[in-house]
Amino acid sequence: MSDQRKLTKEELIAKANKPAEDAMKLHPFYRGKVEVVSKCCIRELNDFAIWYTPGVAAPCRDIQQHPEKVMEHTNKSNFVAVISDGTRVLGLGDIGPEAGLPVMEGKALLFKYLGGVDAFPICLDTKDPDKIIEICKILQPSFGGFNLEDISQPKCFRILDTLRKECHIPVWHDDQQGTAAVTTAGMINAVKLVNKKLEDITIAMIGAGAANIAIARVLVSAGVNIKNIVMVDSKGILHPDREDAENLQKNYKEKWFYAMNSNGMNKRGGKPEAMEGMDCLIALSKPGPNTIKKEWISRMAKDTIVFVCANPIPEIWPWEAKEAGAKIVATGRSDFPNQVNNSLGFPGIFRGTLDVMATTITDEMCIAAAKELAKCAEDKGIHEDYLIPTMDEWEVYPREAAAVGMKAIEQGVARLKMTRDELFEKSSKVIKRAREETKCLMRENFIPKAPK
Amino acid sequence: MSDQRKLTKEELIAKANKPAEDAMKLHPFYRGKVEVVSKCCIRELNDFAIWYTPGVAAPCRDIQQHPEKVMEHTNKSNFVAVISDGTRVLGLGDIGPEAGLPVMEGKALLFKYLGGVDAFPICLDTKDPDKIIEICKILQPSFGGFNLEDISQPKCFRILDTLRKECHIPVWHDDQQGTAAVTTAGMINAVKLVNKKLEDITIAMIGAGAANIAIARVLVSAGVNIKNIVMVDSKGILHPDREDAENLQKNYKEKWFYAMNSNGMNKRGGKPEAMEGMDCLIALSKPGPNTIKKEWISRMAKDTIVFVCANPIPEIWPWEAKEAGAKIVATGRSDFPNQVNNSLGFPGIFRGTLDVMATTITDEMCIAAAKELAKCAEDKGIHEDYLIPTMDEWEVYPREAAAVGMKAIEQGVARLKMTRDELFEKSSKVIKRAREETKCLMRENFIPKAPK
Repeated sequence: MSDQRKLTKEELIAKANKPAEDAMKLHPFYRGKVEVVSKCCIRELNDFAIWYTPGVAAPCRDIQQHPEKVMEHTNKSNFVAVISDGTRVLGLGDIGPEAGLPVMEGKALLFKYLGGVDAFPICLDTKDPDKIIEICKILQPSFGGFNLEDISQPKCFRILDTLRKECHIPVWHDDQQGTAAVTTAGMINAVKLVNKKLEDITIAMIGAGAANIAIARVLVSAGVNIKNIVMVDSKGILHPDREDAENLQKNYKEKWFYAMNSNGMNKRGGKPEAMEGMDCLIALSKPGPNTIKKEWISRMAKDTIVFVCANPIPEIWPWEAKEAGAKIVATGRSDFPNQVNNSLGFPGIFRGTLDVMATTITDEMCIAAAKELAKCAEDKGIHEDYLIPTMDEWEVYPREAAAVGMKAIEQGVARLKMTRDELFEKSSKVIKRAREETKCLMRENFIPKAPK
Repeated sequence: MSDQRKLTKEELIAKANKPAEDAMKLHPFYRGKVEVVSKCCIRELNDFAIWYTPGVAAPCRDIQQHPEKVMEHTNKSNFVAVISDGTRVLGLGDIGPEAGLPVMEGKALLFKYLGGVDAFPICLDTKDPDKIIEICKILQPSFGGFNLEDISQPKCFRILDTLRKECHIPVWHDDQQGTAAVTTAGMINAVKLVNKKLEDITIAMIGAGAANIAIARVLVSAGVNIKNIVMVDSKGILHPDREDAENLQKNYKEKWFYAMNSNGMNKRGGKPEAMEGMDCLIALSKPGPNTIKKEWISRMAKDTIVFVCANPIPEIWPWEAKEAGAKIVATGRSDFPNQVNNSLGFPGIFRGTLDVMATTITDEMCIAAAKELAKCAEDKGIHEDYLIPTMDEWEVYPREAAAVGMKAIEQGVARLKMTRDELFEKSSKVIKRAREETKCLMRENFIPKAPK
């Protein structure tokens, strides 16, 4: 931490701006981040008689007679649609579907490079949740799964829940389940480091958006006592007697659920009151650095665990949190230790899901991913500054894939059965190939060198 | 022709079945025909800070403020959706969206290999034309164009017409415009070879499906007199006094238009009556070989031009048509001379359209493509067995692209302006790159060798 501390706030902000400057230069240079290429041989143009008319008619007929064969004759089992309406893109808010496209294309890139998944960015020109649900259902035939992205709350809950119920392919909202899986992984190791137990810890959650609500749900499934959670939104601590109870009950029923069921200590007030005496802080709220104050952290329990994950600037600078007594600090940024990074989750989770052709992604599969992710770090030796792996540790992805796939098999939602070793090998091969393919395209200049 | 004649009908059918056999072996081997890869550099994992959060926020904001910049910051300008509801797949009929996926994936493959276009196969689980229209409109933000494919008639007319009117990106139905462009190219050269003129020729059209109706429209735009066309559907020649006039008028208004406006010679009857004394036959009807009879061709005009394009077997075998007096015979098959092949059209036409960022594909742009296609063959020397180029002649595609783009600029539907040379060079580069990329992926074993 000490060397980061030497940077002034201005220097830190300049450093934080560098990726944006590069992005403005390199996005127009490459004009897009993914492209579509051939996956099958084209030895001569006559091969199109196999891939297209007349030959293709035979696999078509075969699928018509045996619908499950679509998985053999096409790439459906590895196609994922990254679907957004652009209503809550990163921290930028409702910027619309075109302006959201660079993010969805970036997500497709991550899907392939980290998980070997062929993802298409699909931005929808509608904000109507019923339309989004309807369209996703109609888009199913081409895809092996849907990744919902950057859709505003509260509609994102209903969209996800409905689609999980009504689609025959797995549906995932990364801002909910993905964030929850990776945060849970970090929390599993954080409590170990301070010799506490998930079952006993108390958690103040600042922010009651889609991410924190999903994190709470998954943490509870993973062992946290819901009564030990205190959640805070912009109006203060959630509890059953809130003045806006009627509105919550009607329009934000997920939040209302926590108002009714969390907060066993019956706290009232705002952020400082919520945090007082608690073991953990999970903040996913307004970008900092002054959203969370030092003195609030200093009034938390001993060996405090602080997750301040707002982007681009955490709710409090990590060194300030440490000065205030935090034992472990995690953020959303790659330039500080302990990055809680969604990119550690979805590529491996989808890889495992697709490799066993699971029909859904259950919360238990998420937790299996979180546990494996935690174990990857533990195997290397966790400490205050190394809670969870980084994206560099590529073996994380097939390990996660294997854990997720095995859980799917155990839960009876997988269409293919195999051993953990077979699954690990299958996933490894696909992911390695994706990385090698990118290297090859760079080496052979199909991806040109970035300008200086 | 003479060596083909030696094959028995059984041998020909066996030959025709070979691609289907290969397809059933190779589709499950490759498990899909296209995949998604990186188009931008990934030098190290930190580059994801440029391509994804936090860096990507800058291009997103830039697009929010300047919507046209989506073309610079993303691959939208080269993304095309191949959209089908699976209601009229090849000659297989309504086999459904999953069973149609191998065709749409094959189309995406052709788009990339021949035209350098990044196409996604999107099969819709709805047959409702209003839903299809609505979904396409909502899907616009991610795409530079739509290729509608294998949608049944009559709804395909309304879907195409509505989308052409109401979308801000170009919309194409290959079974209409694509077939029309390539057939028109063939017809342009065929009439030259027999010293006739488009303006004077009489044409019997057998089949009144989406393809023949679009062919008629484009041929008329290209100079053919609508009164010189006689069109035949399953109930006989189209004329204003048909018994089913009311049904045609109400449900098949495109067909009704020809019943009212074609057939200046006021013919009555069926296929033989329609063909009698006519210069040309364009059949896109029931697969042969006995759909058209020798004696009907022998009663046509001197120097008869015969296009028998049903797949997989033409309405009459080419040698039988020749024996009956046909001077020029074209079919839909690659193993006979003069293949009228849609793959000669859409890749180059889309390339040109996307390269000038045209907002639509007009019939004039189709005709420009047809004329350039005809000229490509003429430049090499046309004769009875060489009316139109083959897919092997790769320079055809950038030439077509340049012709189409220049027409778009001339008509004021292009967002970018450039010279023909610039456009030709731009298109050539993209198409060459796509071919070389496939070769590279095969050479480097990312596309494995097909099993023996």
